[in-house]
Amino acid sequence: MEQVTVKYTEKPQLVDPILIEGLPGVGNVGKIAVEHMIEVLGAVHFATIYSSHLPAQVIVDEEGLAYLVSHKLYYHRREGGDLVFLSGDFQAVNHIGQYTLSSHMIEIAVSLGVKDIYTLGGYQVGHFVESPRVFGAVNTPAMIGDLEKYDIVFGEGEPGSGIVGASGLLLGLGALHSIRGLCLMGETHGYIADPSSSRAILEILTSILGLEIDLEDLSRKAVEVERITTQIKDLAELLESGGGDDVGYIR
Amino acid sequence: MEQVTVKYTEKPQLVDPILIEGLPGVGNVGKIAVEHMIEVLGAVHFATIYSSHLPAQVIVDEEGLAYLVSHKLYYHRREGGDLVFLSGDFQAVNHIGQYTLSSHMIEIAVSLGVKDIYTLGGYQVGHFVESPRVFGAVNTPAMIGDLEKYDIVFGEGEPGSGIVGASGLLLGLGALHSIRGLCLMGETHGYIADPSSSRAILEILTSILGLEIDLEDLSRKAVEVERITTQIKDLAELLESGGGDDVGYIR
Amino acid sequence: MEQVTVKYTEKPQLVDPILIEGLPGVGNVGKIAVEHMIEVLGAVHFATIYSSHLPAQVIVDEEGLAYLVSHKLYYHRREGGDLVFLSGDFQAVNHIGQYTLSSHMIEIAVSLGVKDIYTLGGYQVGHFVESPRVFGAVNTPAMIGDLEKYDIVFGEGEPGSGIVGASGLLLGLGALHSIRGLCLMGETHGYIADPSSSRAILEILTSILGLEIDLEDLSRKAVEVERITTQIKDLAELLESGGGDDVGYIR
Amino acid sequence: MEQVTVKYTEKPQLVDPILIEGLPGVGNVGKIAVEHMIEVLGAVHFATIYSSHLPAQVIVDEEGLAYLVSHKLYYHRREGGDLVFLSGDFQAVNHIGQYTLSSHMIEIAVSLGVKDIYTLGGYQVGHFVESPRVFGAVNTPAMIGDLEKYDIVFGEGEPGSGIVGASGLLLGLGALHSIRGLCLMGETHGYIADPSSSRAILEILTSILGLEIDLEDLSRKAVEVERITTQIKDLAELLESGGGDDVGYIR
Repeated sequence: MEQVTVKYTEKPQLVDPILIEGLPGVGNVGKIAVEHMIEVLGAVHFATIYSSHLPAQVIVDEEGLAYLVSHKLYYHRREGGDLVFLSGDFQAVNHIGQYTLSSHMIEIAVSLGVKDIYTLGGYQVGHFVESPRVFGAVNTPAMIGDLEKYDIVFGEGEPGSGIVGASGLLLGLGALHSIRGLCLMGETHGYIADPSSSRAILEILTSILGLEIDLEDLSRKAVEVERITTQIKDLAELLESGGGDDVGYIR
Repeated sequence: MEQVTVKYTEKPQLVDPILIEGLPGVGNVGKIAVEHMIEVLGAVHFATIYSSHLPAQVIVDEEGLAYLVSHKLYYHRREGGDLVFLSGDFQAVNHIGQYTLSSHMIEIAVSLGVKDIYTLGGYQVGHFVESPRVFGAVNTPAMIGDLEKYDIVFGEGEPGSGIVGASGLLLGLGALHSIRGLCLMGETHGYIADPSSSRAILEILTSILGLEIDLEDLSRKAVEVERITTQIKDLAELLESGGGDDVGYIR
Repeated sequence: MEQVTVKYTEKPQLVDPILIEGLPGVGNVGKIAVEHMIEVLGAVHFATIYSSHLPAQVIVDEEGLAYLVSHKLYYHRREGGDLVFLSGDFQAVNHIGQYTLSSHMIEIAVSLGVKDIYTLGGYQVGHFVESPRVFGAVNTPAMIGDLEKYDIVFGEGEPGSGIVGASGLLLGLGALHSIRGLCLMGETHGYIADPSSSRAILEILTSILGLEIDLEDLSRKAVEVERITTQIKDLAELLESGGGDDVGYIR
Repeated sequence: MEQVTVKYTEKPQLVDPILIEGLPGVGNVGKIAVEHMIEVLGAVHFATIYSSHLPAQVIVDEEGLAYLVSHKLYYHRREGGDLVFLSGDFQAVNHIGQYTLSSHMIEIAVSLGVKDIYTLGGYQVGHFVESPRVFGAVNTPAMIGDLEKYDIVFGEGEPGSGIVGASGLLLGLGALHSIRGLCLMGETHGYIADPSSSRAILEILTSILGLEIDLEDLSRKAVEVERITTQIKDLAELLESGGGDDVGYIR
């Protein structure tokens, strides 16, 4: 098996496409936001990415159907730049996998003609937040001026801890390919799915994109996302409790 | 050394072969089931799979003979589809190894003409179970209807935690090659070898396959399997207690 | 993505260049020393090294600008051998990465004509030291005689624990390419940035190189270095506390 | 850098060579035994093996000279089959590295014409042993009969835990190349260097080989070996205490 396998159901020709990433992470803030957009916009699935850098497992749905964990790409045509969404069951297992999958994603983005990437995530503060602030980071200095009119916190020592995983790497690797990138991070407790933080980043993102979508249904989406994520968490704990190499695989 | 090396003692021509996997895992439910079938059917060993993704060790038998850990393939000719069995000493050490070995197995399955895979395992519940239920998951929606007449629990939120390791990946990767797959998981405590759970899945599997085999001897098989597995567990613990890189290798 | 990607902004022709390495490590003694030299000499940045063996993250500066973690090379022209400095955000994540990055660095050094390498670091003693001693190790026996006149402690059972990471490997791999190497290690507590230990090694190194530079400003440099390093430490802790594969990525 | 690099100082033509391995491990029983044989026989060093699968470090000797960790090969010409010794600073860091290095060693052994391998190690019992027994394992059934006259314990359920690392893999991989292999394991406490266990296996090995060597000096050799090993252990602990990716490298 190749390290990364991409299965296309369609190879869309897109106009000025913009990539929006929301993989699992702190509070699942980014994943909830992106899956909500995919649903309300009726975005079209066009590619599935399998990889040996993802966990070695299938997820089982409520009918007993097992599917291999993957990342998925969707598109939505519209004025002002088509949208491409990246969602998925899991981030890569380790740093090598993260670089491999993000590099692959940047190659796909280049081939689609993407010039702008938005990566979405949570910023863990460890306590509940009434009105989550949204922190930002860009990979191109000139972008900061254009973003001043939005309610994004830049700098002030935040995010004090950098950005780990796909949301960070797509910015860092994108810059090497002249793709502009903005990461939006909503404040969140960190230990539970947080649709209100997802809403905070979506309010800003839709404003930037000139997009009007209903943000009422985010709590329901959060429950769905949490069901899948819990499967994954339980597994991870089981694997760990099995200890080292002699893992007690469920089969 | 290649990552995977397959040594064939024979390259059998098989008719409508069905692959049945039972590698070590929770309660060794799958391994006990498959080794029992191999023994009572007198299945013929035809290939051994060595891999750098398996632990770096030999197992020593009661005569002092050391053999490299491996996966083994057996066949059994019969009306209604020949059977191919996959057993082994160990699962791959990590996710990359799992993908590599399962992909290799799918390639071998395709070359043998396999269209159906059954993967067998335990479903850990953490307490003793009088009459173990058997949970199922398939990789092809159309299969569920055909399986309704058997006493398999599909969905109902179980397995709530997905399926990790070879039993999951063979389904997930098999689907990408149009191989139908059913995973049968017997409820089991999880911390000791469980021949009664193996028996529960074998009753259903033999019924599906139209196979009549004696299921009385499973407890003896469980003892054998446990002897090998204990060797492996002791080693794993020793490796871990040795800590980090400076492992105190037995030599 | 290749395992290592080098982006040159310039390919300088250097005269008798000497490589000086100071990557993050115990007390950041080496990194503080090298970054101070780069600043006071006004050394010119000429290459950036990206690698999938570095952590999968971007660092965010005080303006909200995200940049991919990397190693950086600088040069400074002067009589008596131009200087090449190697600094960076991080060491490689594991042993394979360490060998890969150090081998690459040695290849670059050979291509630049480097014949001598100085690697700088701290030697952890676990308590505060008033006047840090400087321990040395060389990769070529003939060097020890020439170094007798400097206040470097060789042997006497120190460093009792060998030299791990880039400072060790550049010596070990350099020797295989006939590059002479000296590692200078300043005594340090180990748990906080230690500019006084950096000063101790710089006093010896500048004396060896016949270089006159101001060593007053090291404390300010230590504060800067610590800000970045703390970002990295916080992240590492977050990653670890997230546990195993199911890491709660900040995004 | 290649994963394995072999530097030959000589390519000896050997007559019926026998390979004897003694890498670090439990109680350093094998390493002490092999290093003693190399010394008293005055065996000639002919090859050094470097690898990115060994720890990323140099060891520093008492004069302050740093050398890259490695495996080393020596030969000793004699009637009845020349001897080739494999010693080294360290075993490979993980299972992939173990397979890679042992496969490489088997290739070298084949190219030298080796038909027999003896691997030496300790068998950890966790308490002090007055007269250490020697356990054996072979990779070829026919060998057991020939070895009956020696005081080797075969089977009886020992080693109950298989053989991990180079001593096991050289037997397992050797068998795939028709190289006969015997592993001799001396009972040992496990936590300290144990020259008396080394002596027990050397008494049997020299008897098998028809070799007469002085076994008085083993305690001195144990002290030397322990000095190096302690360096490595301290490092390993330091690396671990540094935690995860953000290792506090000594430099």
